[in-house]
Amino acid sequence: MSEALRPAAARSATLEDVARIAGVSRATVSRVINGIRNVDPAIQETVKQAIATTGYVPNGAARSLVTRRAGALALVVSGTDADEADDRSTRAHVFTDPFFGRVVSGVFTALSPQGLHPVLMLADTPEAREQAVAYLRQGNADGAMVVSTHASDPMPALLLAAGVPTVLFGRPDSPLPVSCVDLANRDGARLAADRLHGRGCRRVVTISGPSAVRAARDRLDGFQEAMARHGLPYLPHAEADFTQAGGERAMARLLAEHPELDGVFAANDLMAQGAVAVLQDHGLRVPEDIAVVGFDDSSAATAGRPLLTTVRQPVEEMAAEMARILLDHLARPGRGVSSAIFEPTLVVRQSA
Amino acid sequence: MSEALRPAAARSATLEDVARIAGVSRATVSRVINGIRNVDPAIQETVKQAIATTGYVPNGAARSLVTRRAGALALVVSGTDADEADDRSTRAHVFTDPFFGRVVSGVFTALSPQGLHPVLMLADTPEAREQAVAYLRQGNADGAMVVSTHASDPMPALLLAAGVPTVLFGRPDSPLPVSCVDLANRDGARLAADRLHGRGCRRVVTISGPSAVRAARDRLDGFQEAMARHGLPYLPHAEADFTQAGGERAMARLLAEHPELDGVFAANDLMAQGAVAVLQDHGLRVPEDIAVVGFDDSSAATAGRPLLTTVRQPVEEMAAEMARILLDHLARPGRGVSSAIFEPTLVVRQSA
Repeated sequence: MSEALRPAAARSATLEDVARIAGVSRATVSRVINGIRNVDPAIQETVKQAIATTGYVPNGAARSLVTRRAGALALVVSGTDADEADDRSTRAHVFTDPFFGRVVSGVFTALSPQGLHPVLMLADTPEAREQAVAYLRQGNADGAMVVSTHASDPMPALLLAAGVPTVLFGRPDSPLPVSCVDLANRDGARLAADRLHGRGCRRVVTISGPSAVRAARDRLDGFQEAMARHGLPYLPHAEADFTQAGGERAMARLLAEHPELDGVFAANDLMAQGAVAVLQDHGLRVPEDIAVVGFDDSSAATAGRPLLTTVRQPVEEMAAEMARILLDHLARPGRGVSSAIFEPTLVVRQSA
Repeated sequence: MSEALRPAAARSATLEDVARIAGVSRATVSRVINGIRNVDPAIQETVKQAIATTGYVPNGAARSLVTRRAGALALVVSGTDADEADDRSTRAHVFTDPFFGRVVSGVFTALSPQGLHPVLMLADTPEAREQAVAYLRQGNADGAMVVSTHASDPMPALLLAAGVPTVLFGRPDSPLPVSCVDLANRDGARLAADRLHGRGCRRVVTISGPSAVRAARDRLDGFQEAMARHGLPYLPHAEADFTQAGGERAMARLLAEHPELDGVFAANDLMAQGAVAVLQDHGLRVPEDIAVVGFDDSSAATAGRPLLTTVRQPVEEMAAEMARILLDHLARPGRGVSSAIFEPTLVVRQSA
């Protein structure tokens, strides 16, 4: 926008204008603005009227300097392990995963009643991590919510070392004194195994997520263990990258190697969607010929036909809880770390 | 995180420490930190070494007070016309649309090389708009990128009146002196019409987006006009809400009223995906019995089978350009408003 088009009055009233009109000192105006209690109620009212009259808007930076509060919380997507050579548009592709939108949605639900806004940060290279930590140490945000996509992500430890209040989505791989929300992933995988076994599937394969992601490993382990309890100790599996295209490639490979398969567990819905597409391309019917169970209950589960039977991860609720834990840490900095583990549920639709 | 677990050194070094070790005044340290030029290079070097020695991190709020730069830009999702009675989780659902992830991805591509981060804001009620404008006027962000989902959205005008540098995704409905990026939506709809007509479809229906959205109206008008040029002046149409569920309902209604139809144009891929699902539920083959063309080329276009033939809207590139225009306005505030209109392309896959 051209400077010339701005109304001349914008940003013009100052603290001094308010003090003059209210007939009080600058310090008194400042105390009223910052909600400091020991100001006479009548004077408070006078100052508030003067603020309304002048249209004065307190400067955020100035107020932040007094309160040491930025009024913003960082939502950090971290550890995607980008190759430094990747161009930025490839790296930013992580935001188009439906999982990310659900996290943002949940964070908003918790923050907006407080008048707080998430600042989005992508910390997927050493340089980006360093820059993000510096930004947070400078007080541009009051704390961080971290969604790690890699178990060995150094970001949580860097934030702790920098003294930034932090809550993680997903438990860290190595022990760290940090609060987190997580899903009981192994229990979720067991629900999938029980469903497939209960349908009579005995030649089951699984498409796992990246072994570097703790949730992916937990889902694979939980599925294998539950199937072993059903007397099926060996399950062919292919690792993919939580994308639909990755699920398609894994399914094609598994189908070529094990044409007799009758059941598939994919560790997220995008990969399950890819698996269903490949099975249909081969003229196979889902669930009549091959049953498929996904994981997440994201929008991908109801996007195509058949509708996916899946293990629901309540991502929005988990993200909202992550934000609430962070707000609690900010309000009561002396409290210890905490965790909230959510229970998965099986959502039965058409694919299994 | 417990306060007790924070390293004691964090946040401890002050400007005074740096000044003492460098043997200069606080003012000199401040000038070096803020990049003010007329400081002797030797003194600059001494100060920088003292900063490194102490581990001092300048406070963002203090620096912002000097520079009047917040180092953050707002990404405002606005005008979703939420009912005040809707709960927040329903309202925040807008973030799970794949369109939103593509916008975030594009904005990141443009901002991250500058060390800037988007602050997400949802301004979908009068109260939320007022709060967002106040937040921006206070200088918490240097400017705003606005994605409006409603043509009569008051947010762009409110931001202009508040003197906040602003760029819109999509042209405003009524004339406003504001920069924007947009797609040539009518041309895109013409590509869809030509494709369907070229395949021999003569009994074509269309599922339009909300008539309150300018892009939705433009796509409908463009499609109708192009079909009229092909000699087909009357096209049954149903309005939906850009969601898959809305597309399913619209398709079911159109199919019941016009069982003879042989082609469908849906104004986005989510609705096209819903349409395909309903057609398949009725035992109809896509594209053999009924051809379907979508719009956007989002992840929904390749999520199911058949793969969607669609009109590509380069959302990531458009969002990156929106961010670049805003950065340009901040760097050169005297310049006038500008616009960048992107060309759609037809992506032929399986559904038409």
